[in-house]
Amino acid sequence: MFEKHSALLHKAVVAVEMREFWSPFSESPASYGDNAIEKGRIAFEAYRDASFYLDQPGVVGRGGEEISPYGLPLNVTYPLCNPDALIIAARMAMHAWTKAGADTRAGVCLEILSRLNENSMEMAQALIHTTGQPFAVAFQYSTVSAQGRGLEAVAVAYREMRQVPASVIWEKPQGKNPPLKIEKSFTVTPRGVALVIASAVAPTLNSYPALFANLVTGNAVIIKAHPEVILPLAITVAVARQTLKEAGFDANLVTLQIDDAATPVGKLLALKPEIRIIDSTGSSGFGEWIEEHATHAAVFTQKSSVNCVVVDSTDDYKGMLRNLTLSLCLYSGQICTAPRVLLVSREGVQTRDGLVSSEQFGRDMAFAIGKLVEDPARAVEVLGALRSPETLDHINAARDLGEVLRDSFPLAHPHWPEARVHTPLLLKVPVSDEATYAREHFGPVLVVVETGTSAESLAIAERVMRDKGALTFAVYSTNPRLHEFSAEISLRVGVALSLNLTGGLLINQEGGFSDVHGSGANPCGSAAHIDSAFVTRRFQIIGARRQVAGDAP
Amino acid sequence: MFEKHSALLHKAVVAVEMREFWSPFSESPASYGDNAIEKGRIAFEAYRDASFYLDQPGVVGRGGEEISPYGLPLNVTYPLCNPDALIIAARMAMHAWTKAGADTRAGVCLEILSRLNENSMEMAQALIHTTGQPFAVAFQYSTVSAQGRGLEAVAVAYREMRQVPASVIWEKPQGKNPPLKIEKSFTVTPRGVALVIASAVAPTLNSYPALFANLVTGNAVIIKAHPEVILPLAITVAVARQTLKEAGFDANLVTLQIDDAATPVGKLLALKPEIRIIDSTGSSGFGEWIEEHATHAAVFTQKSSVNCVVVDSTDDYKGMLRNLTLSLCLYSGQICTAPRVLLVSREGVQTRDGLVSSEQFGRDMAFAIGKLVEDPARAVEVLGALRSPETLDHINAARDLGEVLRDSFPLAHPHWPEARVHTPLLLKVPVSDEATYAREHFGPVLVVVETGTSAESLAIAERVMRDKGALTFAVYSTNPRLHEFSAEISLRVGVALSLNLTGGLLINQEGGFSDVHGSGANPCGSAAHIDSAFVTRRFQIIGARRQVAGDAP
Repeated sequence: MFEKHSALLHKAVVAVEMREFWSPFSESPASYGDNAIEKGRIAFEAYRDASFYLDQPGVVGRGGEEISPYGLPLNVTYPLCNPDALIIAARMAMHAWTKAGADTRAGVCLEILSRLNENSMEMAQALIHTTGQPFAVAFQYSTVSAQGRGLEAVAVAYREMRQVPASVIWEKPQGKNPPLKIEKSFTVTPRGVALVIASAVAPTLNSYPALFANLVTGNAVIIKAHPEVILPLAITVAVARQTLKEAGFDANLVTLQIDDAATPVGKLLALKPEIRIIDSTGSSGFGEWIEEHATHAAVFTQKSSVNCVVVDSTDDYKGMLRNLTLSLCLYSGQICTAPRVLLVSREGVQTRDGLVSSEQFGRDMAFAIGKLVEDPARAVEVLGALRSPETLDHINAARDLGEVLRDSFPLAHPHWPEARVHTPLLLKVPVSDEATYAREHFGPVLVVVETGTSAESLAIAERVMRDKGALTFAVYSTNPRLHEFSAEISLRVGVALSLNLTGGLLINQEGGFSDVHGSGANPCGSAAHIDSAFVTRRFQIIGARRQVAGDAP
Repeated sequence: MFEKHSALLHKAVVAVEMREFWSPFSESPASYGDNAIEKGRIAFEAYRDASFYLDQPGVVGRGGEEISPYGLPLNVTYPLCNPDALIIAARMAMHAWTKAGADTRAGVCLEILSRLNENSMEMAQALIHTTGQPFAVAFQYSTVSAQGRGLEAVAVAYREMRQVPASVIWEKPQGKNPPLKIEKSFTVTPRGVALVIASAVAPTLNSYPALFANLVTGNAVIIKAHPEVILPLAITVAVARQTLKEAGFDANLVTLQIDDAATPVGKLLALKPEIRIIDSTGSSGFGEWIEEHATHAAVFTQKSSVNCVVVDSTDDYKGMLRNLTLSLCLYSGQICTAPRVLLVSREGVQTRDGLVSSEQFGRDMAFAIGKLVEDPARAVEVLGALRSPETLDHINAARDLGEVLRDSFPLAHPHWPEARVHTPLLLKVPVSDEATYAREHFGPVLVVVETGTSAESLAIAERVMRDKGALTFAVYSTNPRLHEFSAEISLRVGVALSLNLTGGLLINQEGGFSDVHGSGANPCGSAAHIDSAFVTRRFQIIGARRQVAGDAP
C-alpha cells in the first residue's frame, strides 16, 4: 500500500511545506461518477433500519438512537462494547503495527483515506442525517476536507518521524587511539492507546486529524462518538478496520465506542491510565475537565470559541455583507469558526459610497440575511438543520438578551417537513453588557455590539478572544494602521486573522495543507490542526546502541 | 549575529538529522588557551566573597549560601527578586523578541552559547564547587556537552519553525471564473513566559535545552536555581543578559530566580497563570506535583529513574567490569543516567574464559571498585564529591537494606580536607525484596539482584523500569535472542538500550546531536532531550490572510 500511495504521500509532504492551495480529493460531485449523489443516497438508505456490522470485542449489547435533524429516524444499532475490552484489544493490536514502521503505516492510512474517498457520497448522506449539515457542507467540509485533513495529519507526522535516521554509525575520534565506533538505531514507538472524543457537529473534520496522526505514529485509536452522531464514524471505523485487516494487521487498531446520554463513558475512558492520548472536541466545560483531570495523557482539546468580527471600513460593502451573512448562515452558525460577535463603531462604516451609519449597517445585515433565506429551497441548502433541539432553545432564550435586529423564524424544508430549520437571529447587545456577548452563542445567533470607535472594537475583540477563546478573527478595514493593530492582536491572542474577505472564501472557511485550525494559544483549545506539535507528542524516538569497535585495550 | 553564526547553525541542523558524531565545542581543555584551567580557577575565585551583579527588576533583598561539596564556602550573594516582577518584566521583553523573527533569535542564542563557551573554564570551576562534580565531569559534561545540547535545542527548534513559509499566495481555481487569490502569512509566536526549574546535580546540562528551546522560539525564561547550586546558572544568566542587551533586546528575557529552603518559590511560580511553559528537573515527587497541578502550562519533566543493567554473558568480561564500575563511580552515581540496579542470574555469567558464578561476579565488581578508588588522588577525579549531605545519609541507611558486597567509606581528598568524598556502596538485595531495589537509590549505591535466569532478569528490569521509570537500560549478553528481547523491552518501556558497552563509552554517557536523553514514555519524565516534541509546544503558528483578487462579481 505504501508503494501504491507513495506519490500522493510525497505530494502531501511537499504541500504542508509550501502551504499553497492543494486539494488531494475532488470537491466536485461530478468527479465521483454518474449519479454519484443518488448512489450515495441509496447506500445511506441501506444502513437504515439495520444493525451496523462491526466485529469488535467485548460486545455487551447494542445501542444507537439517532434521529436525523431533518426528521428521519435512522433506526441503526451499533455494538456497545466494554471500554476495557476495547483498550485491551487496542494494546494487543499495537505491537505488530509499531514494528511495521512508518512507511507501512502511512501506506495503510492512505489506503483507508482513499477508500473513505470512494465512499464520499454515502458519507455525505450519513453526515446530513446526523449533523443536520446541508449537502454542500456535508460533502465538501465534512467529507472531502476531512479526508484532506486526515492526509495532512499523515504527512505532517510522517515528515516528523522521518527526521531521525533508522540507524547510524557514531564514530568518535580518540586522539591517537582508534576511534570509538558505536552502532546506533532509532525506532519510533507509539505513545499508547489513543482516545478520540468526536463532536456532534463536526464528527469527521475534527476527529480525522487525530485518528490519522495517531494511526500513522503507531497508536491504536478508540473513537468515542456522540450518542446522536454515530453513523459517519461507524462507517469510518468499518472502512479502517477492513483495510487494516486486508493489510494483515489487527482490526482492533481502530474501534468505535458508543454510549448514551444516561450512561456516558467519555470521562470514564479518559481517566483510564492505559489511555495515553486524548483528542477531545466539545464544549469548554468538558474540554477543561479533560485538561485538568487527564494529566496522565497527552491532551489535545478543541473547545468553545467566541470568534469576533470588527467592521471599520471597506471598499466592497456588498461583498462584505455577503461574506458575513454567508459565514453566519452556513450550517446555521454550527461551524466552530463561525462569527459570533460583530463589533462596529458608532462612527459608522466608511465605504466607497460614503459613510454607512451603524444603524444602517445593522439594517443592511438584516436585509442581507433576509435575501439569503427568502427562497426556502435555496436557503436550506445553506442553513441545513439545527442539529440539536437545545440550539433552538438557545435561540429562543437569546432573543431576550438584547435588541432583535432580525428575528429567527422556522423555515419549511421543501422535502423534509419535520426538519429543524430556523433562520439566524441578529441581535444587538449594549457594549456595557459584556457578560452577554463575551460567551459562545452556539448556532445561528450573531451578536452585534456598537462601540465608540474602531479602536475600542479592536480592544474589546482582543479581550473577549483572549479570555474566552477564538478560532477566527475577521477585520474589515481600509486603514493600514488598523491592519497593523489587527495583526498584532491576532499574534497576541493566538488567533488566525482574516482581513477584508469579501469574495468566495468565507471568513469561517479554512483550507487544509495551508490554514492552521486553532493555535493552542488561547482558551478555545490546546491543539492546532495541524501543526507539528499536534503530531510530535504521539510518538517517541527510542535509541539503541552497541559497540562495534573501540578503544578497549 | 545570525550571519556570524549561520554556518554553525546550518551544521547543527544537519547534525540533528544525521545523528552521527558531532561536537560543536571542544572537549579538550588544551583548545581553551594556555593555562586555561588555572585562568578558570582565578576567574572563579573572583566571584567569591562578593555580590554577584545582575541588574534584574523587583529586587527585594539578596540571598545565596552556597558551600562547596569540597568544603569551600562560596560566600556569594545574588539578587532575590519578586517573582511577579520577573514575570511582568519577562512579558514586556517578549514583544520585540517575537517580532525579531527566528533568524535573529537563533543568531543571538548562538552568540550566547559562544560566549558561554569562552567562559568554559570558570564555568567548570563554578560547577565543581556547587555540584561536587570532578573536573572532567564539570568540564566535559556540564559545560561543553551542556553548550552542545543548548545548540541542539536551537537547531531542532529552528528546523521546526522554518517548516512553515513566512508568506504564500494561495490560489484556488474557480472553474470558469478567475481563481480566488488569497495572500497568506504565517508567524511563529511564543507560548509565553517559561519557567525552568534547574536541578542541583546537573544544573546546566538539564536546563540549557529548555533555556535555548524557549529563547529561540520567542519565549522569555525565568531560571529557578536550586538554593545550593546557583553560581553556574547566575553566570549563564549574566552572559545571556549581556548578549541580549548588546543585540538591542531587553535583558529581562532571561532572569534568575533564587530562593531558600525555608521559603521555596518553585511551586508558587509554577502555579502562576502567566507561566505557560515549565521545564522541571528533580525528584519524582516534585515532578509529579508539577504535572498534576500546572495544567495551565506545557510541562516537561525529568524525574527519578531506576536504570537497570542485566548481565547475562560477555566476550569482554574485564571491559564490562570496567564500564560498569566507571559508570557507577563517575560523579559518585549522581548522574541521572547512572546504573541503579544490576540483575544477574544464579546461573552465572558466561565469559570467554568460562562461567563466572554470580557470587564471583559480585566479588569481581567489588574488587574492580576497589582498584578504581585505591589511589585517592586518582579516585577523586572520578568520584567527585557528594553534593548533598542527604546522599551520605542515604548511603548509611542503605547499608542495612541488604548484604554489603563492598562497603562505602570516606576518602580523604588530597587538596580539600573537608570534601564530602565517599566510595560507592555495592549492595546485594534478595530478588523477593522488590520494594527495596525498585526505587531510586540516588548516589553511589548499586544494588545487585540475583535472579533465577537471565529471562527473569529481563522481566524484572522491564517491570521496574516501566513502573518506576528509567533513562538507561544496559544489557551484556552474547546471545542474539536476548538482544532481541532486550530491544523489545527497550521499545515497550521507552528506554534507550546500551548493548555490550565495554569500551570508552560508558553506559551512562550520552552524545548530543545523536542520543536522545529520556523519551517521555516512562515515569522518569515527560520530556526527551531533544526530540521535536520538546520544542514544538513552545510556539504556535498564527496565520493571517487577505484577499488580493477574487471571484467577486
